[in-house]
Amino acid sequence: MRTRKSRDRSRLIAAAMQQIPCDLTIENVKLVNVFTGEVYPAAVDVLDGYVVRVREEGETTEAPSAQTYDGHGAYLIPGFIDTHMHVESTMMIPENLGRAILPWGTTTVCTDPHEIGNVTGIEGVKFMLKNAKKAALRQYVLAPSCVPAVPGVEGAGASFGAKEVGELLDLPDVVGIAEIMDFVGVYKDNERMHTIIAEGDRRGMFLQGHAPLVHGKELAAYRLGGPISDHECNTPGEVGEKLRAGMHINLRASSIVDNLPVLLEGCKGHKWRDNVSICTDDVHAKDLLETGHINAVFAKAVKWGADPVEAVKWGTINAAREYGFDDLGAIAPGYIADMQLVDELDGRRPNAVFLEGQLVAENGVYLAQDPEDNEELTFPNTVNIPQITCEEDFRLKAPEGCGDSVKTCVIYLEKDGNRRRSVWIELPVKDGYVSLEGHDDLQYCCIANRYGSGDKTVAVIKDFGLKEGAVASTVSHDSHNFTVMYKDPADALAAAKELARVGGGMCAVRDGKVLDTLCLPVGGLMSPLPCAPLSEEIRRVQEAMAGLLSKKGSLLMVAVFALPVVPGIVVTDKGLVNGFTQQIVSQFDLN
Amino acid sequence: MRTRKSRDRSRLIAAAMQQIPCDLTIENVKLVNVFTGEVYPAAVDVLDGYVVRVREEGETTEAPSAQTYDGHGAYLIPGFIDTHMHVESTMMIPENLGRAILPWGTTTVCTDPHEIGNVTGIEGVKFMLKNAKKAALRQYVLAPSCVPAVPGVEGAGASFGAKEVGELLDLPDVVGIAEIMDFVGVYKDNERMHTIIAEGDRRGMFLQGHAPLVHGKELAAYRLGGPISDHECNTPGEVGEKLRAGMHINLRASSIVDNLPVLLEGCKGHKWRDNVSICTDDVHAKDLLETGHINAVFAKAVKWGADPVEAVKWGTINAAREYGFDDLGAIAPGYIADMQLVDELDGRRPNAVFLEGQLVAENGVYLAQDPEDNEELTFPNTVNIPQITCEEDFRLKAPEGCGDSVKTCVIYLEKDGNRRRSVWIELPVKDGYVSLEGHDDLQYCCIANRYGSGDKTVAVIKDFGLKEGAVASTVSHDSHNFTVMYKDPADALAAAKELARVGGGMCAVRDGKVLDTLCLPVGGLMSPLPCAPLSEEIRRVQEAMAGLLSKKGSLLMVAVFALPVVPGIVVTDKGLVNGFTQQIVSQFDLN
Repeated sequence: MRTRKSRDRSRLIAAAMQQIPCDLTIENVKLVNVFTGEVYPAAVDVLDGYVVRVREEGETTEAPSAQTYDGHGAYLIPGFIDTHMHVESTMMIPENLGRAILPWGTTTVCTDPHEIGNVTGIEGVKFMLKNAKKAALRQYVLAPSCVPAVPGVEGAGASFGAKEVGELLDLPDVVGIAEIMDFVGVYKDNERMHTIIAEGDRRGMFLQGHAPLVHGKELAAYRLGGPISDHECNTPGEVGEKLRAGMHINLRASSIVDNLPVLLEGCKGHKWRDNVSICTDDVHAKDLLETGHINAVFAKAVKWGADPVEAVKWGTINAAREYGFDDLGAIAPGYIADMQLVDELDGRRPNAVFLEGQLVAENGVYLAQDPEDNEELTFPNTVNIPQITCEEDFRLKAPEGCGDSVKTCVIYLEKDGNRRRSVWIELPVKDGYVSLEGHDDLQYCCIANRYGSGDKTVAVIKDFGLKEGAVASTVSHDSHNFTVMYKDPADALAAAKELARVGGGMCAVRDGKVLDTLCLPVGGLMSPLPCAPLSEEIRRVQEAMAGLLSKKGSLLMVAVFALPVVPGIVVTDKGLVNGFTQQIVSQFDLN
Repeated sequence: MRTRKSRDRSRLIAAAMQQIPCDLTIENVKLVNVFTGEVYPAAVDVLDGYVVRVREEGETTEAPSAQTYDGHGAYLIPGFIDTHMHVESTMMIPENLGRAILPWGTTTVCTDPHEIGNVTGIEGVKFMLKNAKKAALRQYVLAPSCVPAVPGVEGAGASFGAKEVGELLDLPDVVGIAEIMDFVGVYKDNERMHTIIAEGDRRGMFLQGHAPLVHGKELAAYRLGGPISDHECNTPGEVGEKLRAGMHINLRASSIVDNLPVLLEGCKGHKWRDNVSICTDDVHAKDLLETGHINAVFAKAVKWGADPVEAVKWGTINAAREYGFDDLGAIAPGYIADMQLVDELDGRRPNAVFLEGQLVAENGVYLAQDPEDNEELTFPNTVNIPQITCEEDFRLKAPEGCGDSVKTCVIYLEKDGNRRRSVWIELPVKDGYVSLEGHDDLQYCCIANRYGSGDKTVAVIKDFGLKEGAVASTVSHDSHNFTVMYKDPADALAAAKELARVGGGMCAVRDGKVLDTLCLPVGGLMSPLPCAPLSEEIRRVQEAMAGLLSKKGSLLMVAVFALPVVPGIVVTDKGLVNGFTQQIVSQFDLN
């Protein structure tokens, strides 16, 4: 599959034959060849955004290029390709993503807009596609497969069936179906997943997977159902089993999950790792600003022992091959001239980044000439929580006739952040409500539908680390319902009022007062701000949240309790859900 | 790109979930995993021709398969894929090819029918496609790009332009454009090659290359012109340069050329060899019968030091990836169950071969149930040489006024068989004809158009090894004109009459008498006989030829002097041609 870029073979041939000059030569570089793993001195000629020729030492040209760029002996490597990410998790809109990550050397992203899809449906996906064009960066979109993640056990703002997915697959720059998270639906061959995948099959399109802890016969069935990749491994054995099964493993380190050493361990002892690529999944603006994007995962991989030249391959040509892009991911004749100059192969920020042969960033500064744009973006308020009116709405009602205590299902996160666990705890009942008195390690969590259905669930969470007040978010994977962690319902109510007022975001509340708010008016998920000022807002709200917490936590730690396609017990607006069986389970044990 | 095989995901999922039984389990094997390079004990479940699951030690199934096959501890590897071959060179028709090579472990071939294309045009290609269906073996066809190889300097039976290539590309089982041999036409961007390649581009199809000794700026231009592969390297440096340029290298060892050590040397020192696959190009029936097919190249590669497990990867998944076949070349869920059991990874004949999960060969015996077929094949005589009537037609006329000797261009083959060289030799002139008296190392070569144009060329060849008589062939790459090597024109005339009578083939003549004839009535290229009796005919004619020769030579050594897309001077029916400049050159130096 070729990218969307046009190509005039005659001009490229003429340039190679030195009959017409190229646009640009990047000279004095150490080229990293992703086909052979060799590194050697070279100069690279570019025309019309394509690599025309890599000239090795002593090879001159009769037709000098219009421009030359001195690489000063740095490594020249292909631009990075992110095989799986959600733009919404950066909290930026696509155009600002481009401006933020091109300077870090990422030139192509394959994004899953299922966050905005869950909030505003197909229109949201179209907004992402259109907005991406306002800045440089090659942004491909995958049609969200699981909106909502699991129908029936959560309420979202939209629902995609085969018809909607098919409609999206026919849009330009949509290259496949995004993480097919309903792995149970796939290996049980339910109608929704079957018909959605059939839309991809019909068009011969890429089918992205998501199958944490799936193994053995279920893994075989999942693979036979369609999906070819995974970015959710938990153990080295899981990585090894999936690679043996021919799946592509996207090495992920995100703002939420980082178990990269485990993933790398799973690739060890193999003769080759053709099916390994890199992804960021969920990284927010502040992390992007401070440590970068794919380069940051690359840096960690190298730190954990990966061969730097091989890691370049993972982040470039392996990713392109995973998608079947036959003109991306390498620096060779006929490849699109997406390249970066780096002083060392350690994941540091590149000195210069080229997209289709254009210098788009230098020393961290975005330089691309974006199209003139006078369109004012307006965003409807998507936070609609009529069921929240008073403090009592945030109390956890004890079951009828349970006496003065009740065995309650309490949820906690394992420390790698990627698995939900639950435990039964006997909690006191006061005035018909479950009390957390005497349990400093516990707090309430309320997830309230924000699309007008009126549903809400109050649950108990352990070891979240809340000392006082409340932290709340309308970013809450994947239905993005209003989610708040609190000790005192009064604080939760204040948080709900604040986020409803600003159209979504995150906030910290103490003693009924809002300490700070991160406004995310674009679907309650994204800010129209560029990376740097947004990062400052993130820093502020994170600081405010940190004051309420007894332990360090990710900004997005509030956002990971609602996803019913990960193992363990999660909370949705409809109740507690077992992520393996995808069924509502009982919150109380009355036996 | 998927193969032509249909797939019912629901049945495959149900089988993986052990809800329905599989068709077959191959148990007690050492599986070679081409994704990881690991080798481990396993059992493989198959349904509907697809691998459902690879069960490792201790993994059982609740739904035992209808049949089991005991691998007796042998290695189970994917069926081999030949990335480039001409069925016509085997001298068998496609159905007999299938019966001959499946027992050697090849399950997929990507063939270039440009030999028959040069003789009988599109109808010939359609015959190959249709006839392939009469036996097992997955036969894909590439649309011949160079019929004739170079227009204007040779006369063939057909001529393909963009229109004809486009028509072929739209046929089922045609997967790309075959070896784009007119490399000069590509890097000079001539209209024929440009418009032919555009037909492939328009359909997003595979573009196979052929570019011996092309390097530097011409190689870049060739690559930019479209072709992505090469099977014609002459030196390790050439292999290295092409791999660096992102091209696929098809390691070739054929009945004509075998420089495998050179090719392997060119891959050394690379961190990985993702773009390396294996092909046979031209192998005749007798070699197939005696040593095999891809397995024979595999055996040589291992003998020359290749890692056997990596060589399995070259012959399977790397080949599939080169073509973009995403369900071939591996043993994993969702892959087509093309597999072979081998006692050692040394290229020996497999114990058993499975095609789409069916046992199709065991210990060298073809077992597939071919469709009932009562069609009688008839083939028109394609040998039409009205210009040959008498002995004088085979004499080499000296140029006017040259005196009693003339400096003549004499052609010879370098000893690796892959490069033509030429030298000027002063030869005596008698009665207006060039004589070879006193030059025992020389013989005449006549190439006569066999499609009725009336063209012919008589040239002088050195070191062919002919002691007496004549050897003749209508197999003569790529226009397949009547070609004869001789000392005495009377022998050449007898050979011409014989091959015209039988509709083409090869023969040996001494003292004006035909010693033996290999009849190839299918386009003068192929026999309707199966491999074993055909091999016996080949052996006989080869023996007869050997009696006339002072040195050992390949059966096809007569066939390689006419191809105007290889470096050096070649002979066509229109004259002597420089393979690099693709222009007719002078046979005599009169300065």
